Amino acid sequence: MKKIASLAIAIATLAVAVPASAQFAKPEDAIKYRKSALFVMQQNFSRAAGMAQGKIPFDAKVAAESAANAEFMSKMPWVAFGEGTDKGDTKAESKIWAEKAKFNELADKMQVEMAKFSAAAKTGNADSMKAALGGVGGSCKSCHDAFKKE
Amino acid sequence: MKKIASLAIAIATLAVAVPASAQFAKPEDAIKYRKSALFVMQQNFSRAAGMAQGKIPFDAKVAAESAANAEFMSKMPWVAFGEGTDKGDTKAESKIWAEKAKFNELADKMQVEMAKFSAAAKTGNADSMKAALGGVGGSCKSCHDAFKKE
Repeated sequence: MKKIASLAIAIATLAVAVPASAQFAKPEDAIKYRKSALFVMQQNFSRAAGMAQGKIPFDAKVAAESAANAEFMSKMPWVAFGEGTDKGDTKAESKIWAEKAKFNELADKMQVEMAKFSAAAKTGNADSMKAALGGVGGSCKSCHDAFKKE
Repeated sequence: MKKIASLAIAIATLAVAVPASAQFAKPEDAIKYRKSALFVMQQNFSRAAGMAQGKIPFDAKVAAESAANAEFMSKMPWVAFGEGTDKGDTKAESKIWAEKAKFNELADKMQVEMAKFSAAAKTGNADSMKAALGGVGGSCKSCHDAFKKE
């Protein structure tokens, strides 16, 4: 009886704490969420980067808005890498969950680099933006090389 | 020769203007973008709404963050409803493009209602959030009824 009571308390505590992984109704939702957030980020980043590189005609307002969107989106995917979201329609390597500290470090690094890029875009200077591109690209690549399936 | 020259100028002008629909490399990207943005919005809104309604344990910080995310996301899908994005993997009714003013009005209405919900969530008061739910739900529904396929 005592065991059942403490189990009930443990479950209740768990429910109240709302761990990140429990913010999604189903693992599929979490997987779809992080892919969606990363896609929206990538589209905005690519547009701003393309303008900085002269591949798309430069429009300072659109470049700054797109970079700010990419910065906002860079914060969103990580909550959706909770336990139990390694199976399904995902290219996430299962070692993400075995090496969570390393994964989080790379995720943090990308957010820092994206914020630098966004700050550069706010100045309206394409050269400043170009100087910040390598940091973003490098942080995407290092995480994908380590933790994303081909 | 003169015709070719003026056509070249027209095309160059088009490229420089960067209309909203040209912000995406392919129509498929635009379709995927708006679906992704709406999904990320819906997931955040549902979490905050669920907390307001007592379906999920109330956590004022998570509720406010989720509602702020939903508010940010509510501004993003619309740029991706450009010309030529009516065909493909989409439930968007083609009359969106024939009735663009009405569509934009409903999109604007939803953003206003979501901002009210987010403002309520910032107060940390579940009752204020609940009072703002109907406005958001109603604006989603009126646009889906008019412009989304079953």
